[in-house]
Amino acid sequence: MTLANLFLSHDFNNADDAPQSKSIIGSFTPDDQPPALKTRLLENPQTIALPLSSISSQATLNSSSSNSYILCTDSPPTSNTADTNNYTGCFEGQEKLLEIWFSTSAEDIPSPSCDQFDTKSSLKLQSPDPEDIDEFSQYRTGLRLIPKRVLRDMLDLVHCSVLDSFSNAYIDSYLLSESSMFMYPHKIVIKTCGTTTLLLALERILDLARIYCSFKSIHRVFYSRKSFMFPENQPVPHNSWDNEVSHLDTYFENGSSYIIGDANTDHWYLYMATPKRADEQTAPGNVETSELSETSDTTIEILMTGLNPSKMEKFYCGHFGDSSEGLLGGKLIEKASNISDIYPDATCNSYLFYPCGFSSNAILGEHYFNIHVTPEPSCSFASFESNIPLSIPTNKDSVANLVSKVIDIFSPTQFTVTIFKDIHQHSKDTTSDDASHTISSEYKSSDRIVYKLDGYWLQYNHYIRA
Amino acid sequence: MTLANLFLSHDFNNADDAPQSKSIIGSFTPDDQPPALKTRLLENPQTIALPLSSISSQATLNSSSSNSYILCTDSPPTSNTADTNNYTGCFEGQEKLLEIWFSTSAEDIPSPSCDQFDTKSSLKLQSPDPEDIDEFSQYRTGLRLIPKRVLRDMLDLVHCSVLDSFSNAYIDSYLLSESSMFMYPHKIVIKTCGTTTLLLALERILDLARIYCSFKSIHRVFYSRKSFMFPENQPVPHNSWDNEVSHLDTYFENGSSYIIGDANTDHWYLYMATPKRADEQTAPGNVETSELSETSDTTIEILMTGLNPSKMEKFYCGHFGDSSEGLLGGKLIEKASNISDIYPDATCNSYLFYPCGFSSNAILGEHYFNIHVTPEPSCSFASFESNIPLSIPTNKDSVANLVSKVIDIFSPTQFTVTIFKDIHQHSKDTTSDDASHTISSEYKSSDRIVYKLDGYWLQYNHYIRA
Repeated sequence: MTLANLFLSHDFNNADDAPQSKSIIGSFTPDDQPPALKTRLLENPQTIALPLSSISSQATLNSSSSNSYILCTDSPPTSNTADTNNYTGCFEGQEKLLEIWFSTSAEDIPSPSCDQFDTKSSLKLQSPDPEDIDEFSQYRTGLRLIPKRVLRDMLDLVHCSVLDSFSNAYIDSYLLSESSMFMYPHKIVIKTCGTTTLLLALERILDLARIYCSFKSIHRVFYSRKSFMFPENQPVPHNSWDNEVSHLDTYFENGSSYIIGDANTDHWYLYMATPKRADEQTAPGNVETSELSETSDTTIEILMTGLNPSKMEKFYCGHFGDSSEGLLGGKLIEKASNISDIYPDATCNSYLFYPCGFSSNAILGEHYFNIHVTPEPSCSFASFESNIPLSIPTNKDSVANLVSKVIDIFSPTQFTVTIFKDIHQHSKDTTSDDASHTISSEYKSSDRIVYKLDGYWLQYNHYIRA
Repeated sequence: MTLANLFLSHDFNNADDAPQSKSIIGSFTPDDQPPALKTRLLENPQTIALPLSSISSQATLNSSSSNSYILCTDSPPTSNTADTNNYTGCFEGQEKLLEIWFSTSAEDIPSPSCDQFDTKSSLKLQSPDPEDIDEFSQYRTGLRLIPKRVLRDMLDLVHCSVLDSFSNAYIDSYLLSESSMFMYPHKIVIKTCGTTTLLLALERILDLARIYCSFKSIHRVFYSRKSFMFPENQPVPHNSWDNEVSHLDTYFENGSSYIIGDANTDHWYLYMATPKRADEQTAPGNVETSELSETSDTTIEILMTGLNPSKMEKFYCGHFGDSSEGLLGGKLIEKASNISDIYPDATCNSYLFYPCGFSSNAILGEHYFNIHVTPEPSCSFASFESNIPLSIPTNKDSVANLVSKVIDIFSPTQFTVTIFKDIHQHSKDTTSDDASHTISSEYKSSDRIVYKLDGYWLQYNHYIRA
């Protein structure tokens, strides 16, 4: 992620005047701060970063580096350098989640076409980059063949970067500066928080799927998010649900938009489009067989706010043992917080951010889960998302079991549980249609909502601490 | 309804100029046209009515009556008089539905207080008007004691008028120029279509309940409607759901707002507020007992669009026997359309509008149903609403039975069924939680949605002809 990209979401019309009316709280160069901190500092509405080169001779901070930046704030500085431990900004933890299916399953991948050898395309295939070669190369097909450098360029459009990646035979997992990405041969899942511009990468993703994998059209697309904590900070098209839907509608036909839960308080937005496939249009009799052979699709999300402050301490660098920024600190906190006990057999990589914040990506065979934590008391938020089938671990009431494990880690004051399954998967499960699960006597269920949509079954439960 | 009220929803800034740029298609005086036709003519965006007194000397139509109006249109006139049979306007059949409960049951009515003898109030009690005395006077308590003339004044704020009223021991039924009103001792139900301004009567209703019935606060309020066909024609606050919610929020605390169904196509809006009652606040242990003793509350609505044109013919004056405007024509069509077979034991009054349109109000003991039909092909719409418990008639699947009877009358291309029950009523019913009912193989269910809200259970099903 380049700093120039970060600046896209800020109005710099008055950049020359800004330093004179603000307190300078520190400086940094593009390489001396972890990306998450840069975002957090820049997302604090009271903080802006200005290139030193743009500052007039009145600037009071000198730097020999022409690509350095100064940090300015409206609030009085506690020292003349950025005291990042005192940072209490308004970080938007609520993620945008985009999932695009290009075919029904990992086995249903088009054979290479002439597009891959299109010499006019700037994205044409080259010989594999060394970083794309590992012990799982032989298993990679479809979208997993897109080179990492090309994915990084795509993520620049979203305004986030790759912190870590790991793989198994089925999935490539990317831990991002703002959340997660999972690449399957036939589908891509991207989840990004903060003021990232996820939907601005839509056209590029569709282009990459066409150029690298010959996917001419999509099979299904889902875009969802909870209501933002700080909607006024979101850039276009994320500044309103209507704008997001309009943006999606320019790419997909017959999209449906749902606003689920109390629109006056906590609620959840869902956009889905399931364009007719060619085989459905030409041979209606084959539809049911085709649908039954699809990969089962179940996603559960647990979105939590008002996290317990004492439990949040360990998600700050240096507050648990010698935890520090990075993967090692992440692994330490993953174990200390019991996140590693949710699915003990999963391969999990975690990242602890400086000064605070935490992300985990985990893969388990063909499935994944991820956890992201914003521990700041002013905007505390944690999310858990998983497509691991709810019948694993086998348990009479596995949803309640899973939810209990997750909320025990964070002790939120409120949380929502959304479960999204394809209808065929739902009819095979023993989970009750009734949206009530005995989570804990500590929580009272307010809204319980069940949607049976075109081919999908969605359950939304909102809980408040009693 | 006065014509002056109708004009409130039109912009007359350029009234002086309008006649010169439009074709004059006719004239009328406030008393020579039925109210529904006036509304239909005025709601046609191409038609405006102007008081003759406001027209300059260039007016080409003379009238000796100073309170006459001329009708102007952008489209070429077919004759020099209003050819109302050629009317093909954009009538908004989708109703706004407001239901306010002031107490839990008809038995829970406050004793008269000094408010009733407040000499400062312009709405103070007087000796009963002759029109308010009938064989059911002895049964009237609570809201049913509000005089008809006072209700008519309240309905002026909504921009509709009373066409007919009838009663039994439990309910007063009012057939309105735009839909229906039902008065119980403890609750009021008003449903109005077109460009009526239902929510502008909210303050007056709360005032009347306080002055005439000593209701100091409400028990519950529900406001709902489907997405409008012609939202651009709606006056403030009905010009957007956000504005309607803001308006309601100024009167009620802790209101919840739900947008149910696909926001990109057909969907349904619901606002509900259930302020804490005094007994709940002071003695939490009593809540459950109190709630169990409440009157059961079940409402079903069937909202239909794309009505069968040949079945709609009978809802035009003169198209079935000698059917004409009024109650007699209404009764004729009520029987011819099989509406009278839905609940044969109900007392039903119906009204046929000129040139077309139909309304039925029916009461059955403590319960009611109503039907409203907009038959014009350009905006055809029919609604059925009932609070008759779904276990009557006793039938294994009474919802499906009722829905089949109703849709057989109109043969819509699409319809929604919403069922709204209090949780206690729902737990007593045998009706399945599963939102699927075998309506007819002719229709395919698209969205099936179940909401379990605070004390209420809501089911929303959307059907499209297969």
